Amino acid sequence: MVNTAQVTLETRGNAQILDITPHLHDALEDLDVTEGVLHVFLPGSTAALTTIEAEPGAIADLRAAIERLAPADIPYKHNETAHDDNGHSHVRAALIGPSLTIPISEGALVLGAWQQAVLIDFDTEPRTRTLVCTAVGE
Amino acid sequence: MVNTAQVTLETRGNAQILDITPHLHDALEDLDVTEGVLHVFLPGSTAALTTIEAEPGAIADLRAAIERLAPADIPYKHNETAHDDNGHSHVRAALIGPSLTIPISEGALVLGAWQQAVLIDFDTEPRTRTLVCTAVGE
Amino acid sequence: MVNTAQVTLETRGNAQILDITPHLHDALEDLDVTEGVLHVFLPGSTAALTTIEAEPGAIADLRAAIERLAPADIPYKHNETAHDDNGHSHVRAALIGPSLTIPISEGALVLGAWQQAVLIDFDTEPRTRTLVCTAVGE
Repeated sequence: MVNTAQVTLETRGNAQILDITPHLHDALEDLDVTEGVLHVFLPGSTAALTTIEAEPGAIADLRAAIERLAPADIPYKHNETAHDDNGHSHVRAALIGPSLTIPISEGALVLGAWQQAVLIDFDTEPRTRTLVCTAVGE
Repeated sequence: MVNTAQVTLETRGNAQILDITPHLHDALEDLDVTEGVLHVFLPGSTAALTTIEAEPGAIADLRAAIERLAPADIPYKHNETAHDDNGHSHVRAALIGPSLTIPISEGALVLGAWQQAVLIDFDTEPRTRTLVCTAVGE
Repeated sequence: MVNTAQVTLETRGNAQILDITPHLHDALEDLDVTEGVLHVFLPGSTAALTTIEAEPGAIADLRAAIERLAPADIPYKHNETAHDDNGHSHVRAALIGPSLTIPISEGALVLGAWQQAVLIDFDTEPRTRTLVCTAVGE
């Protein structure tokens, strides 16, 4: 069985890190798969998906690491070519990536005890984001 | 249904970033899946897959960020142990990763309006790369 | 067909990089899928999965790059909020990611000639890790 659901979220941008685990569990209820995998994808080039222990300390640490990796305050060519201000957002999103695959067992996501799925919105202003969730299994 | 196709590309290396979206859409036509997911995998340890807005500015910015992350001109142990010159290529590829999963809806890839799937070839000379595309769905 | 197997490994932590390819091939023998994909997932927020040429030089180079990316000896807020010592482990794991999807053909993983699947355990002490392997295909 292959079923799809969408999750829509309002984000603030500027490297906001949102715990999407509860939203994915809500989506799972409609997807009718109890054993298999959930593929989560973020359409868009200025946000990304990963997992982390979503407590304020680790979230602040991840944001600081990303700021070192692709600082917001250095020149980006995208800001010239596209007359935009989010060159760093594009680079950060490409480095982290837009897709995540999580196992499903007994109708629930298989995650570590302190592991949450997160969306990081790197854009420079609030956005409406739609995650595409595809469950494959039985 | 689970179907596989291969896409073969000639690359120049040295962090060349190629938009592979049109090639993936061509592969989709043979894969007979209209709703589901497309898994794309790069066999090889010196290239990687991600998504970005594939315009010249953002591409140059991503290349610059990768150069800061794993500079080409610092010493790499791989260059001694393997008598090679592509230690930085291996590190870069491992950090970005070789796999990407994109949803399929109505027979097309579900991507953001300014989001393209890209292959980054980090090796130090031209290569022939073969992507393995596996569609799962109906 | 969608089948699941688990692989349990003892790790030393501190960015130990383990070649898990033989373990995945062992798991494949029980999974009864000869054409399709293998999804590998690491439950836990202080370890990650990727691929690399798993020879000592490239492994040392990847560890050095990760140390530059998220050094162990700078302050991390997680260490205060969670009264822990592994803030850098969480950041590193989130940047690399917990999931990997590899094609299966003729009952074997489709990898490059010098490409191995690896688990990197970033935690600060030995751990028992359980990988969740889900094969999808025929």
